[in-house]
Amino acid sequence: MAGYGAARCGKQLIAVKVRGRHYHSIERQGDTVVIVDQRRLPHEFVLTEIQSLDAAVAAIRHLAVRGAPLIAVTAAYGLALGLRADPTDAGLDGAAARLMASRPTARNLRWAVDAVYSRVSPLTVKDRAVHAMRVADELAAADIASNRAIGEHGAALLRAMWKATDPRRSLNVVTHCNTGWLACVDWGTALAAVYAAYDEGVPLHVWVDESRPVNQGARLTTWELAAHGVPYTLQVDAACGSLLRTGRVDACLVGADRVTAGGDVCNKVGTYMVALAAHDNGVPFYVALPSSTFDSQIATEDIEIEDRDPTEVTHVWGLGTEGRRTCVQVAPDGTPVVNPAFDITPSRLVTAFITERGVFAPVALQSALRR
Amino acid sequence: MAGYGAARCGKQLIAVKVRGRHYHSIERQGDTVVIVDQRRLPHEFVLTEIQSLDAAVAAIRHLAVRGAPLIAVTAAYGLALGLRADPTDAGLDGAAARLMASRPTARNLRWAVDAVYSRVSPLTVKDRAVHAMRVADELAAADIASNRAIGEHGAALLRAMWKATDPRRSLNVVTHCNTGWLACVDWGTALAAVYAAYDEGVPLHVWVDESRPVNQGARLTTWELAAHGVPYTLQVDAACGSLLRTGRVDACLVGADRVTAGGDVCNKVGTYMVALAAHDNGVPFYVALPSSTFDSQIATEDIEIEDRDPTEVTHVWGLGTEGRRTCVQVAPDGTPVVNPAFDITPSRLVTAFITERGVFAPVALQSALRR
Repeated sequence: MAGYGAARCGKQLIAVKVRGRHYHSIERQGDTVVIVDQRRLPHEFVLTEIQSLDAAVAAIRHLAVRGAPLIAVTAAYGLALGLRADPTDAGLDGAAARLMASRPTARNLRWAVDAVYSRVSPLTVKDRAVHAMRVADELAAADIASNRAIGEHGAALLRAMWKATDPRRSLNVVTHCNTGWLACVDWGTALAAVYAAYDEGVPLHVWVDESRPVNQGARLTTWELAAHGVPYTLQVDAACGSLLRTGRVDACLVGADRVTAGGDVCNKVGTYMVALAAHDNGVPFYVALPSSTFDSQIATEDIEIEDRDPTEVTHVWGLGTEGRRTCVQVAPDGTPVVNPAFDITPSRLVTAFITERGVFAPVALQSALRR
Repeated sequence: MAGYGAARCGKQLIAVKVRGRHYHSIERQGDTVVIVDQRRLPHEFVLTEIQSLDAAVAAIRHLAVRGAPLIAVTAAYGLALGLRADPTDAGLDGAAARLMASRPTARNLRWAVDAVYSRVSPLTVKDRAVHAMRVADELAAADIASNRAIGEHGAALLRAMWKATDPRRSLNVVTHCNTGWLACVDWGTALAAVYAAYDEGVPLHVWVDESRPVNQGARLTTWELAAHGVPYTLQVDAACGSLLRTGRVDACLVGADRVTAGGDVCNKVGTYMVALAAHDNGVPFYVALPSSTFDSQIATEDIEIEDRDPTEVTHVWGLGTEGRRTCVQVAPDGTPVVNPAFDITPSRLVTAFITERGVFAPVALQSALRR
């Protein structure tokens, strides 16, 4: 059975319930890097050691880690682990190329690999691995700080929105895919705004798109929101338009995998249809992103949209009746499938971008983020 | 485990592969009525006997039969079966009320129950059951004839479209949910147009929305198209916008559960978002329906949208690894769910309606169908 649940990406450490302990989605612990295996959520919380470049590439490719900011940090650690095995120029180039190819669409992954590469390539071979690990640590710390800032800017916006409507009722936010701490090192992007607003006392309710085919909404966003105590309701992606049309949504809030200079947004497939439905009903549509997601160079039509394994669509993973993680085949044998992982939302449908540097209209994004 | 796969609705007859034999989705065989249990497709083809009002209500409610035209005919037979047990006025009224309540949204169901009711209520008690069965047979035959006509009008439209573009390439059609012979007695509504055009030699390729939560696209439309030989590709519902935006779709073609005098379309949830994406990309959006789906009396905001069992969203049925039909839980325990089965597409997004009486613009629909 292929698909996102198939591959092992490292040594499995432990299966525990998250109780009280504050985890990051990725953590360096001495000489090893530990991730939460997101394919196993929400039914199991499993930490996995990543000890090699191969394990990092597999974790990224097979969605043990996902979310543009998190795969960037995982790639940075992966490059450091690769240099530990082979710190030569050939080793550096080979590792960087493999990581860049592990998933093609997200801007952040390339940005992180470039960041490590440019810092360690001038160094002597013996210094590279240690230094690369240090750069990866810096990127992880910067991600947390950046997401915290995104959360604060987003929370101010949500608070203002809540006060401007009827403060006796909750603010209803639609989100697509998972943009919480599991998509980053901590906090999240769009969900960082939700968490920060909720923690400040803004009454919030989140409509969670299940986010087919890999169900990051149904599996991860629900799990995160429940753990944080934020009220939420799950719906199929196709129901989002119905919620918007019947006046049950005050704002849409999504993340991004790559944003162009013109403000076009490449994000999880389905985002474009959410944006269309928001626009058709006069509901604001916000995109939260760290500046590492911004790509001032690329033309929208040149963004490579990853076409993933057909079994992600034809088969569904979940908890079987015997309590074991299992997979069922929904479509007939041999069904031809198209499985684009992302789509493009044109900037005309975006109300504003929420970044670590503030909230910007699409026309202002480039000057704000190129600084 | 609740959900659409849970309930038994009648005595299971036989499990066979469909080979060569032309089945109807519902057939009267002497004193019993036989349906294809659509919950078991695509992995098993199971015929089930419906021998009572209870069995008919259960088959409709639990989606053993679905599709607005088919549930109408099933309800007609269900009323006849109910009258066989209790042909009194109280029996007639009780049976009609139970069938009407079995699913609230589709117009056709009410229309069919009304049709049988008005024909048999003036009769003496002893004549009612036999006569009701005869009316149900007439409705089944009329459904086939009507769908055949919808197919011919739709095929003419598709052929003209194909000739107007580049006749060296296939015409690419998106469809949502299942509108084929499984949704009717035979042929289908939107898919009737596809079948008729394909049979006439128009090269077609169908993009099939999986149609969460019950996956009528992934399970039924794929199975029907494969059996007929029509080329198709399956995608998640959220990917439909991406296909439209990247120029891979020539037309959208859907069915309907209820259409208002103003041309607003109540159909399977997600239809509205397909229509928005079609509109945003200048792709025509067609709705195929028999006139029994048209409701000249109701205001759009008064259409009752059925909110179905949460487990349809949190759990997914399919073929397990051991070859048995099984179910997996995707979302965490206790996840709150909203599960509207339908949504409303405003008439401004509809290019034209394909009916058994011809193809009509939204403004012309009322005068065409009230005749």
